Formats: sequence, C-alpha cells, structure tokens
Amino acid sequence: MKRDVAIISSGMSKFGKREGKGLIDLYLEAVEEVIQSTKLERIDALIAASMSPGRYENIMGPANILAGLLGIEEGTVMRVENTSGSGGAAIFVGYQLVSSGRSDFALVIGGEKMTHLSTEENTSIIAGLVHEYERKLGITLPSYAALLARAYMNEFNAPQEALASVAVKNHLHGSMNPKAHFQKRITIEDYFNSKVVSDPLRVMDYTPISDGAAAILLTPKDIALSYTSKPIIIKGVAGATDTLVVHERDDFLNLKAVEISSKKALKESGLDLKNIDLIELHDMATILEIVELESMGFYKRGEAWKAEMNGENRYDGDLPVNTSGGLKAKGHPIGATGVAQAYEISMQMWKRAGERQAKREVNHALSMSMGGFGNNAYTVIYEKGW
Amino acid sequence: MKRDVAIISSGMSKFGKREGKGLIDLYLEAVEEVIQSTKLERIDALIAASMSPGRYENIMGPANILAGLLGIEEGTVMRVENTSGSGGAAIFVGYQLVSSGRSDFALVIGGEKMTHLSTEENTSIIAGLVHEYERKLGITLPSYAALLARAYMNEFNAPQEALASVAVKNHLHGSMNPKAHFQKRITIEDYFNSKVVSDPLRVMDYTPISDGAAAILLTPKDIALSYTSKPIIIKGVAGATDTLVVHERDDFLNLKAVEISSKKALKESGLDLKNIDLIELHDMATILEIVELESMGFYKRGEAWKAEMNGENRYDGDLPVNTSGGLKAKGHPIGATGVAQAYEISMQMWKRAGERQAKREVNHALSMSMGGFGNNAYTVIYEKGW
Repeated sequence: MKRDVAIISSGMSKFGKREGKGLIDLYLEAVEEVIQSTKLERIDALIAASMSPGRYENIMGPANILAGLLGIEEGTVMRVENTSGSGGAAIFVGYQLVSSGRSDFALVIGGEKMTHLSTEENTSIIAGLVHEYERKLGITLPSYAALLARAYMNEFNAPQEALASVAVKNHLHGSMNPKAHFQKRITIEDYFNSKVVSDPLRVMDYTPISDGAAAILLTPKDIALSYTSKPIIIKGVAGATDTLVVHERDDFLNLKAVEISSKKALKESGLDLKNIDLIELHDMATILEIVELESMGFYKRGEAWKAEMNGENRYDGDLPVNTSGGLKAKGHPIGATGVAQAYEISMQMWKRAGERQAKREVNHALSMSMGGFGNNAYTVIYEKGW
Repeated sequence: MKRDVAIISSGMSKFGKREGKGLIDLYLEAVEEVIQSTKLERIDALIAASMSPGRYENIMGPANILAGLLGIEEGTVMRVENTSGSGGAAIFVGYQLVSSGRSDFALVIGGEKMTHLSTEENTSIIAGLVHEYERKLGITLPSYAALLARAYMNEFNAPQEALASVAVKNHLHGSMNPKAHFQKRITIEDYFNSKVVSDPLRVMDYTPISDGAAAILLTPKDIALSYTSKPIIIKGVAGATDTLVVHERDDFLNLKAVEISSKKALKESGLDLKNIDLIELHDMATILEIVELESMGFYKRGEAWKAEMNGENRYDGDLPVNTSGGLKAKGHPIGATGVAQAYEISMQMWKRAGERQAKREVNHALSMSMGGFGNNAYTVIYEKGW
C-alpha cells in the first residue's frame, strides 16, 4: 500500500563563499536546522546528493561520512548523483522509501563545496557533464545557454530586456533571502553594464559558483501529524531524461526532460498546471527560467518572456517563480539545489519566508530540478497538508 | 501493493585491464549481454553505480550519458554511489522502483574504469573513503585489513594458511571464470612467496585494480514470466551502516553493517541462514571473506577460517563462497562489484557457470556488497523462481 509522504521539517545552510567549510560541515549546518524543529527519535534513511565531492574535496562516500556523524546504524544510506539535478533525484529516492513503507524518517540532503577551487578548475569539472563530442568543440553549459538565448530571441522577437527582467527579479528575491549568496538588488542598467560572457549573455545572466547545503525530512503522513500540524504533502514526483547530445535534439527550444517529468509528476498528483501557485526551477541562466516555464506548459511557447517583463513571476505576482532568488541570486551549490527548492517551498507554505513571502496563498507548488542542459529532470509537486 | 521483483537477464563485461575502454564502453558491454537474451520493448529505469567517474575520467552524470545512448526518455535515471558498495545500493534502488510499481523494466548497472591511472593515483582516490583523522595517520584500506588479520589470527589462533586458502580458492574459481581478471591458479607456496604489502598481508591477499561493468534487468514477477521461464526472485534487500571511524568501533572483529544488513535482508525474505546455498561477498582482502562470513552468522566467531581450510567454501563444497573468483581473482572495478555478485548468482541459478558451477543445487543465494571498511553494506537474498 502506498503511503502519503510528508515534509515535516527542512533546513538550509547559508549559501555563498563559505571559507573553511567543507561539504560535510555544510551538510551538518542544514541538518541542524532540521533537527532543531523536530525532536527526532531516529533517522532510518539518509539520501545525500552531491555531484562530485571526489573532484572537489577527494571525498568518497559523503553519505557514509554523514551517517557516521549522525549515528545512523540500521538505516538505508546512499549518495544519489544526477549532475546539477542531483537534489531532485535524491528527493525521488527518499519519497520512494517512505511511500513504499521501507522508511519512516528519511533525511534527504544535498550539498556541494565549490568556491575553494578556481573558476578554471570549476569550469573543467562542470565541462564533465557536456557530451564528449560537443565538449571537444569547446562548448560549455554557459555557451549552450547563450545559443538558446539567441535562438529564443530570434524565434519569438523577444528583447534582451526580458532576460534582464529575470535577473532583476531573482536578485530582488535574493535580497530578501538572508541565506542567498547575493543580497544585492540590481537594475536593468546594471545588467547591461555587466560583462559579456558568451554573447548575448552577460555575467548577470548566470548563476555564481557557491557553497551550500539543504535538507528535508520525509515521513509518512500519519507519523507527520505527531510532529507537526503543518505537514507538506508530496503529491507527485517523477523523472525524465533527454539526450545530452544537444545537436541531436529535435527541438532546441523545448526541454523535453523538463516537459515530460513535469507532466508525469502532475499526472501522479491529480493536479493541473492551473493549480500550481508557486514554482522553483533551474535558472542556471536567465533564459532557462523562460524556456523551462514554457516547456512545462505554464506559458505558451514564446510567451513566458512577457510574463517575466510584466512582473507576473515576482513574489508579489500571480505566479511567483524562484522566490528564493533562484540559482541566479541564491546560488547553485550543485548537489544542494534540488533540495533547496523544496526548502523554499516549505518556507513559503509555512509562511516563514519573511519579506519574500508570496502575496498569493500557496496551496500547491512545483519544483523542477534539472541535470546538465536538460539531460535529466525531476519534478516534485507539493500540497499544503492542513 | 508490493510486487515480487525478478531478475530476468544479466550481463557482465570482461574484468581486467581493459585498455582503450572507458566506463561508458564497459557499461555498454554489460548492457549488450542483457539485451541479447531478452527482446526488450523498453527500459523505464536506469540506476547506474560507480564510485568516482569524476576522479577517474572527469565524467559527471554517467547515468545520463548511458540513458542518452540507450534512448531512454521517460524513465527514472540516476547514479547511486556508496563507495565500494555502490552496486549493492543500486540494486536496492532498482528493487524499490519495481517493487513499488514505479517501474516495470529497471536496468541496474555498475562499473568503474581504474587501470589507466597509476597505483599511486588509485591509492589517493581510494584513500578518500577513509575517515580524515585516520587518513592523516597514514592508514589505508589495505592496512586496516592487515590490522584485522593480525587481530583475528591472535584472537582465534588462526594460521596464516587460512588466509592463503581463501586466495587459492578464489584464484581456482577465477581460473574457471572466463570474465575474471585473473585466470591463473595459485598455490599456498605462491602465496607465501608473494611480497608483503602490509604485514602480515601479502600481494596475494588483496584484490587487484580492475576495469569492468555488470548489469541486471529487474521486472515484476508477472511480467518476468513472459520473458523467461526462469526468473530469479529477489526475496529481500537491505542496507545498514557503521561508523567509518574504525577506532571508535566497539568490536573490531565484527563488521556491524554486514551483520545488520544481512539480518534485515534475511528477515525480509522469510528465510534463514541455513537456507542459503551460495554466497558472493566482498573479499577486498582475504581476511574480510572470513570475518564477513562470521559477521553474517554463517560460522561462529573464530570458526570460518577452518571452513576455508577444509574446502567447504569451494565451488564443490557445502557452502560455496565467491564462485566468481570474488574480488580477489575476478577483480574489483569498484562500482561494478555489487552488481557482478548478482550476475554470478544468476549464472549459478541458471546453470550457466560452466566449470565453476556449484556442485550443490542453488535454490537460495546471498550477496553482500560492502562500502569502505564495513562503513556500509547492502545484502540481497535470491530465490530460484521456478
């Protein structure tokens, strides 16, 4: 029998340049917040996401290290990796464990320690998730995003101000999130004054390199109710993949894995796009926020940029997107991101989001955690359980 | 409703020094054998194990790469990592997906490409799974094994010939397994003539550094029957952990994660130790085969070495152990090992193990995949489903 799965607690470290803090320290910071708000008797599953602790810190088996520190003995412990979407995949596994009756208290955590390496070293690691043929041509994730931006603007007559609007909005949100990497607001002029990285995209189109971790605690709904009166129910979670050979994709302007995973998760939840009140998604670059919104069907093709420009996706708009600041301003410690999306949604539903609290009521929300340039995606649907 | 989960097909690359073959090539070799023996319509989950493709080949997201090559789009795809026990954790996740009804055709694969790096580089990577405090003292996994051997021999008055017997047996098995890294038989004299690595252990106590991959295909039992008349049923699968700070363990001579995971898996299966006809376990060093057999309860403490010396654990003995050649002779491409254990059990149950076919009937079998020096273990219980 499938059990309803609830988030009863969540935690997140400060994101940013966390000097002297390694992946395990960051994990522990997130865990501390989870544990503070519940009086846990036990954790019987620990699913830890990260992309490459081996490359970053020569750590093998970060899940094992954390399990040892938390004193977990009889539990199901493993690391899950799905490149930039590792956090979403970890939520999926945690959900499966609780839903199937295997675990009653599953801690899902994600993190990455990145800023101690140079930009060159980070670029070399991140290039590891581009297909080898395309990598040999010198393409990187940032340059894919630039190609996508150019194609999108040409096809739909969108002005670059639309991209700037995404950056301005996500920095506004970040400025209201004390845990975000960037706390400063920017203007359209700041955006256009920032350096070109890969034409037409500028520094302010891209997520920074950050350190950080986030965690959520999953239990079956009946157990949840003895820990909190406000459980958040996971109504659906699903993954999908697409070829990572980007030049082989039929339709460059549609991210198929994003489309399929969100359709599957919505179907499982019994909900519809129009039920979703708030979205956290994978804005590794500004253009991706726009294309992902269209791939999921929230806007028609070629229309999402207009919503971004008219403020619809701000925290005080009709369909808030990335109230956390998104990858753009909150930061993107790779393995943390998918779990940090769930953290933000819990803050919004629990009305603990402070200044960035969405103006509209958030009864249902969606998070979409993407790997690479749309190679893989996991979508999660959340429902206020009270 | 929980569904019965069956292995309907399995595959394994040749293990050894596979020049010019990367992790993805090795994965594909294993997949080819899986596909040859079934006419698959689709794969809807791909769980890929490996320890550190990032360190070994600067590959991020090997599961995504393989999914792209296999044309999987709507499936659940991820990598699972659990250091040396990654393969066992991947089987666990695949089992959960099929058992819960989430997936009908789950491909579980494991692999590692290691031999292109020097022994020094490999040692540095593998040292990443020792706790940092102990690592700073210069301890490595091979020297833990040496400490364990010394403690065991002292405590139980066991002669070093017992360790030699494990090596001789596993090389005998490897010599009958065309896919094993080592094909040559060794004698007790060869063992004692081999170089001391970490006193009292010698070169011939340890697994070599190997390349390789292995895969199994899981389906629910009812679907299995339209593909094969000989499905192998997974009756139980469970994980457990132990602190990786070895000096903090209460009892150095008992591997607690091994003990707990095997007890849990047996309980789930409804079977008993005495039902198990064949075992594949994690003999990273000879002494570990002995101590794991005792930790799981197959022999009383201080008794397993006698069984090893009297031939009970040979392919023609009463309780065959590591008929594949084990890590010692078959090799240990880290992420492959847990899945390769399931491969060997499938060969034995299907009576396709050739010369090394166990003399006794194999109705039930157990595999135990261990991470690090007993930091983590997953045990799987198999039943002949016909």
